[in-house]
Amino acid sequence: MMVDAEFMRRIASAAAAETLPRFRRQGTVANKLAGGFDPVTEADQEAERAIRALINAEFPDHGILGEEHGSENLGNSHVWVIDPIDGTRAFISGLPVWGTLVGLTVDGDAVAGLMSQPFTGELFYADGDGSHYEGPGGPRTLAVRKTTALADATMFTTTPALFKGEMRKRYDHLETQVQLARYGTDCYAFAMVAAGQVDIVVDPGLKPYDIVALIPIIEQAGGIVTTFEGGPAENGGDIIAAATPELHAAALKILRG
Amino acid sequence: MMVDAEFMRRIASAAAAETLPRFRRQGTVANKLAGGFDPVTEADQEAERAIRALINAEFPDHGILGEEHGSENLGNSHVWVIDPIDGTRAFISGLPVWGTLVGLTVDGDAVAGLMSQPFTGELFYADGDGSHYEGPGGPRTLAVRKTTALADATMFTTTPALFKGEMRKRYDHLETQVQLARYGTDCYAFAMVAAGQVDIVVDPGLKPYDIVALIPIIEQAGGIVTTFEGGPAENGGDIIAAATPELHAAALKILRG
Repeated sequence: MMVDAEFMRRIASAAAAETLPRFRRQGTVANKLAGGFDPVTEADQEAERAIRALINAEFPDHGILGEEHGSENLGNSHVWVIDPIDGTRAFISGLPVWGTLVGLTVDGDAVAGLMSQPFTGELFYADGDGSHYEGPGGPRTLAVRKTTALADATMFTTTPALFKGEMRKRYDHLETQVQLARYGTDCYAFAMVAAGQVDIVVDPGLKPYDIVALIPIIEQAGGIVTTFEGGPAENGGDIIAAATPELHAAALKILRG
Repeated sequence: MMVDAEFMRRIASAAAAETLPRFRRQGTVANKLAGGFDPVTEADQEAERAIRALINAEFPDHGILGEEHGSENLGNSHVWVIDPIDGTRAFISGLPVWGTLVGLTVDGDAVAGLMSQPFTGELFYADGDGSHYEGPGGPRTLAVRKTTALADATMFTTTPALFKGEMRKRYDHLETQVQLARYGTDCYAFAMVAAGQVDIVVDPGLKPYDIVALIPIIEQAGGIVTTFEGGPAENGGDIIAAATPELHAAALKILRG
């Protein structure tokens, strides 16, 4: 395996110690988008600091790319990519569907990663050998669902409003072809693809730190993650995750026009 | 108080025993909307059966209106209104933002109610004297946030697609006036109004069992729940929940055109 489970748990735990006490702090919560210093920004910054400290101690030569504190040592073959709180809007709304994302790339390929949700006590991670879950209901191996037809698929996107112009028309058409379309769950929806609960996630305009950790979790559970052009997702962009090659091809056919 | 906390906990626990073991049962999950017998329908039906048994044993004269098993004894002044799983789509997608809803009306007014989320271990309830939370982070009293301007408000709706024609235009306009608009969390968003995390929820076409339990939870936390006409919400319809009278008035002004 590329990264052992115990290191994954230590990262999740260190991040949780910074995020969870600041979750649902009523009255003082401001919106990060509106600027200013607030519990979300504080949780974001402190969690990333804690994660970077663990990585620096364990793998001092590795590179790190983080949402909050920038990049270091990106010339190394091994680079960790961190989003301390993916789903800031869920966080400020009190919804337990945000997550901490930490992924490892080797020569640009995402090979291991974790998504943790400390309020529910869930950890989804891929260690290079497989994709795993720890949390309520006990540990288990993650595997995608074998859905092959759009008509049987559950699809998530953050919001259709992120698709513009012609792409919005294509997205709307895709939505008419699936059994169930839902909005607004960020990293949690991607984790549900790995868990066999959701079949497709499409999200335009992602940054590397929004997706790198999730790629190995989905791929090592049997799924597929690419750009809308079918290329590697590690650099972000317009991203699709699908449970099966059939769904991936059918959805891309519509999205590419 | 109208209903004691211990009875609320017993209802939540009996429902959880039927819903939780069927949550995330990968592979066998079909969509209730597509018909057929599936884990969601089973969980819905068995949870309502368990809840009705507790109510019948404790309050044999009371009426019951349930989503799954119909109505009994509605001539009584006291009627319980049950939705064993509100948020079926979240349930089948594996997202922990569905809930069990049980409310009590006296002469048509919602006076007590509970929303429970067994995966997160959360119970939100109003007992006639106040609105309360039990779950991760420990028990506390619920209170709405004192937001008064739309420009500072976080608003939820299930999906804008439920608003049709002129009403859709009004909803879209309302969305441009708030700080943050999010979609798709059913009862959980209403509970977050009571918890002071969300300021407005608007949802058209609700049934009584979608909203009765939530009315006292929000009202006894200091908030307001009405139809878009400003009337009682107990019979369902197009429903708005707001943290303050100012937000309620400002949102209704836009929604009523």
